[in-house]
Amino acid sequence: MTKGLTYKDSGVNVDLGDVCSKIMAQACQQTYANRKGRIGEIEVLEKEGLHRIITINFGSYRLMLNSDGIGTKVEFAERTGNHKTMAYDLFAMLADDSMRFGAEPIALSNILDVKKLDEGIIKQLAEGMVGSAKETGVAVVSGEIAELGKRVGGYTENAYNWCGTVLSILGKGKEITGKNIKPGDYLIALPEYGFRSNGISLVRKILTNKFGDEWHKEPVVASLALTPSRIYTKKILKLHGGFGEKSYVELKGVANITGGGIPGKLGRVLGAKKLGAELNDLLYPPEIMKQMQEWGNVSDEEAYKTWNMGNGMIVVVSEKECQKTLDKLGKIGDYSQIVGNVTKKPGIRINSRGHFKEGQTLEFK
Amino acid sequence: MTKGLTYKDSGVNVDLGDVCSKIMAQACQQTYANRKGRIGEIEVLEKEGLHRIITINFGSYRLMLNSDGIGTKVEFAERTGNHKTMAYDLFAMLADDSMRFGAEPIALSNILDVKKLDEGIIKQLAEGMVGSAKETGVAVVSGEIAELGKRVGGYTENAYNWCGTVLSILGKGKEITGKNIKPGDYLIALPEYGFRSNGISLVRKILTNKFGDEWHKEPVVASLALTPSRIYTKKILKLHGGFGEKSYVELKGVANITGGGIPGKLGRVLGAKKLGAELNDLLYPPEIMKQMQEWGNVSDEEAYKTWNMGNGMIVVVSEKECQKTLDKLGKIGDYSQIVGNVTKKPGIRINSRGHFKEGQTLEFK
Repeated sequence: MTKGLTYKDSGVNVDLGDVCSKIMAQACQQTYANRKGRIGEIEVLEKEGLHRIITINFGSYRLMLNSDGIGTKVEFAERTGNHKTMAYDLFAMLADDSMRFGAEPIALSNILDVKKLDEGIIKQLAEGMVGSAKETGVAVVSGEIAELGKRVGGYTENAYNWCGTVLSILGKGKEITGKNIKPGDYLIALPEYGFRSNGISLVRKILTNKFGDEWHKEPVVASLALTPSRIYTKKILKLHGGFGEKSYVELKGVANITGGGIPGKLGRVLGAKKLGAELNDLLYPPEIMKQMQEWGNVSDEEAYKTWNMGNGMIVVVSEKECQKTLDKLGKIGDYSQIVGNVTKKPGIRINSRGHFKEGQTLEFK
Repeated sequence: MTKGLTYKDSGVNVDLGDVCSKIMAQACQQTYANRKGRIGEIEVLEKEGLHRIITINFGSYRLMLNSDGIGTKVEFAERTGNHKTMAYDLFAMLADDSMRFGAEPIALSNILDVKKLDEGIIKQLAEGMVGSAKETGVAVVSGEIAELGKRVGGYTENAYNWCGTVLSILGKGKEITGKNIKPGDYLIALPEYGFRSNGISLVRKILTNKFGDEWHKEPVVASLALTPSRIYTKKILKLHGGFGEKSYVELKGVANITGGGIPGKLGRVLGAKKLGAELNDLLYPPEIMKQMQEWGNVSDEEAYKTWNMGNGMIVVVSEKECQKTLDKLGKIGDYSQIVGNVTKKPGIRINSRGHFKEGQTLEFK
């Protein structure tokens, strides 16, 4: 049997990435003093582990900035010629990542690095941007297009990389820190039907191994992989309340399932209090993910560490507020499901819905 | 005689860039409605031409976001192995561009796309970031590193593209719109000793033509071209006053001389009122720029449209406040000089300090 592919095999060095992120984070901390005693003073609300909450204070307003990009997912757009969904990935990466702190996304700025400009592609990206901004409830206030020639690469001469920054507002007392999470709390997941912008290098590696360099000529595959990210921001806001609004339920924790999957992202939320989770009833992954597992011989463990596996967002609520949360999500027209509980025992235990070990327990430390 | 090189010859399509920027800008405008009547409502303070001022309103605070990157200048760092100055270019692009509206830069977020991570390079970038953040007076609150493999290209395997977004605050009545500019007003320039991050593709083209692909083996050339951008933010703040501070002089207009040079950037500030300028005493370009002109047979006209030619920032003040402005800049230890006057006649007329036509008048419509 062939050795199964891992995310690392796709060329992404996660460990070195962590080391480098830490170097940059430490440099950032040295710059907070630059605003001390002035408007826009920096406040670190939460220091535990990776789950840091950094706000920029303007009188009674606490704002946040965060940045992200859509990585190598662009290649699906380049190969299919459909660029309209890319903005949904960008906005999901940015807005939903603010939401996990309880901050309401307000405004966004974006940077598009292109190899060689193409007006038709720009029109498609712009169209997607208008749609996804509406879905997220944010305004796009500025942007930059840079034509960088050989500094940008991809499948076509018009390859691009797209990233941005979102400005969010965090109401007083509205920060979600994970501090109130207790064993026995309920975990509710919202469904995701595609890959979002995570673990895409592995998907491309699998497709190349399977179909060769022109893998997009299997059209179903490419368009399935292109499925745009769902944007959860407005749904989470219905539960948590926007700035100045009362919370409908207390969201004790929010895990935005992006890079690192459920073990990484839910693990981060629970790990601050050294808690764990038992996930006995996760949502099923979309068929395309199981198909990728099969083609790449990607173990269920690796798949759950790399992709969202059908659970795009997981919120932590008390037993008491669990039904209320499900009902509210139902009312606004979204499916949601209790997927498990918080445990005193650290680590994440998943009853797998993956291709190889369905029904078996996977353990993540 | 060989045909002189132009910026367009270096592969950058400025016209198509404008078309694409316009498509994106129109899409942005459609998203402002997403915040209507809510916290973070968008206000367009100034609509004329390209000189638009868009604020995000939080009670009595008006904030701005803007994004930019350092383009192909990174290649100088890659070829010389010196990455410590790159942050100065990034911070200059971002902060000084807020300053032209009168907005005080507060906080910054950055995105680093890398081909393959290298810890040593990250350390150098981080060191530069701490230094340039201090020089700018901003805090760096977040960042993202994305390892993108072949989607990023450059001279080395560790090539990267670096961009970011800055959050700025604009005090009530502190916006610099250019509305009060009158014929006869004075133009004062602050010196720049290097290229900043503009017109670098042309520099690389010239060096490649002259020395071949391994042009950095002319070490003086590469390190001169690497000269970091000066950051003018704190100097302009001394004149304009930060948030909540009184202005020392009225800055009627501020032209940050980046892409498009003096004709483009000063032209934009004056063009809104259909005014022009007579620049009889510009600061001299650094020798390296004249050298590039000679090697590339770049006309003075093209050089002034592509590079800053030694004038990094130009402010517009009344005759009455001119001496006061020069004195203040002198006191804070910076050289500055009256370089010309605003004219009723549109267009920019430059008494050239370039390599080919020193002392002759260049006309830009």
